[in-house]
Amino acid sequence: MAELIFTDDRKHPGLDDFRDLSTADRRPDRPGGRGLVIAEGTVVVGRLLASRYPVRALLGVERRIRELEDDLAPLAVPAYVTSAETMADVVGFHLNRGVLAVADRPSPPGVAEVVEHAEVLAVLEGVGDHENLGALFRNAAALGVDGVLLGPGCSDPLYRRSVRVSMGHVLRVPFATFDSWPGGLKVLRDHGFRVAALTPRPESVPLRGLRSKAPGPIALMLGAEGPGLSEEAIAAADLAVRVEMVSGVDSLNVATAAAVAFHEVTTG
Amino acid sequence: MAELIFTDDRKHPGLDDFRDLSTADRRPDRPGGRGLVIAEGTVVVGRLLASRYPVRALLGVERRIRELEDDLAPLAVPAYVTSAETMADVVGFHLNRGVLAVADRPSPPGVAEVVEHAEVLAVLEGVGDHENLGALFRNAAALGVDGVLLGPGCSDPLYRRSVRVSMGHVLRVPFATFDSWPGGLKVLRDHGFRVAALTPRPESVPLRGLRSKAPGPIALMLGAEGPGLSEEAIAAADLAVRVEMVSGVDSLNVATAAAVAFHEVTTG
Repeated sequence: MAELIFTDDRKHPGLDDFRDLSTADRRPDRPGGRGLVIAEGTVVVGRLLASRYPVRALLGVERRIRELEDDLAPLAVPAYVTSAETMADVVGFHLNRGVLAVADRPSPPGVAEVVEHAEVLAVLEGVGDHENLGALFRNAAALGVDGVLLGPGCSDPLYRRSVRVSMGHVLRVPFATFDSWPGGLKVLRDHGFRVAALTPRPESVPLRGLRSKAPGPIALMLGAEGPGLSEEAIAAADLAVRVEMVSGVDSLNVATAAAVAFHEVTTG
Repeated sequence: MAELIFTDDRKHPGLDDFRDLSTADRRPDRPGGRGLVIAEGTVVVGRLLASRYPVRALLGVERRIRELEDDLAPLAVPAYVTSAETMADVVGFHLNRGVLAVADRPSPPGVAEVVEHAEVLAVLEGVGDHENLGALFRNAAALGVDGVLLGPGCSDPLYRRSVRVSMGHVLRVPFATFDSWPGGLKVLRDHGFRVAALTPRPESVPLRGLRSKAPGPIALMLGAEGPGLSEEAIAAADLAVRVEMVSGVDSLNVATAAAVAFHEVTTG
């Protein structure tokens, strides 16, 4: 069972992981310069506690920590209980969710490992916006996508804001980063996947009915809103598909386009 | 042609509509206490200029105003040209989009007017979040939905933040507010519509294949993320449909669920 530690000492060394959260994603003192994984609020903290991520500690007001007691029962981690004021002082701003948890980053799986047991995957290129990336993971989790593969230009799914916007689903949906691009897509073909690039180009086929053309394991490749996928990414795909849209309207947000495509392939 | 007025006078009365934008949605001095319609950035300002909304004035840095010259050509409105610093002083914060336009609110159409020429509609209950509402309008525009009908608890689509998140599409997609709820849905039936309530309840049918059960004019009814639709709204619908989701995952964001449903019915 986690140990509850009541403290109002803002300088308690156990609280060091929680200090100055607005810059917590940059940690030059840690491997890769990346911060710890930070979960905010009982729902997301609960998901972190249930994940494969090695939790280091919790910090929260008593009511929120108590709400997590069942999730904490099997874990031997310190849970610091303090006041909302002390929390705000430590993290650097008022946090209305009342509870935080930090975890180490486990070594990430390789692309092949994520591909191995998957049927439907998302492949991303240039998705650099943390909120869009988080929303995409949430949609992937909701709609039954088995994993996310990151090409160049994607941001880190474990940034604090991505974790929050994903509702903690970045901690559940497996993801991996390609070592080479677009050459790394070969792993997908080796596992029987077809790669469908989402692009509005004229040669693309409508998303609707995609499964009749591409049954079996499928990877949906998406680029950032605006620039879209690169030429080389599209050329490396097996087919091009488009979400049919009214002309003269901007493209959909990438997480929204992904949701539409995920629904099509998981129910089609 | 719009008149270009170069000024660096922060007190110029022509700039009054642009003052203190962070509170501009509350205007007790105006009908209904609601603010003017405010568009930010060349894309959204361009859409406002092309809309049925009576534009009052523009304010921008010269480069941005020049980018809009073609859109401004047919209009007789003052366009105030100033520096980024003066703009920031007037609006109350730094605005990196460089151009603004304000318009009056025209009298809104009635529900019957929006229904009359539509084939696919969205009906909303309790969608109080301005960003979700704006995103939903953007998705409606992109995916070919003909109008949005607002039930109780919805926020005002013309709030500044909704206009921005919608990319200006709240100015293009017709919308109207029900006078009675859910009794007002009768207008839809009078026009041959079937009303499909999106809800995860067990009696709901999968969204996939909805069109085989409900061809013809259709209204998709959506509630806020979290509470969802009220009992009475669901009871007033003709059928209940669900986006099939992995169990244990939170519901999708309402604008995202709407996009999935819009795509299904406009391509199904």
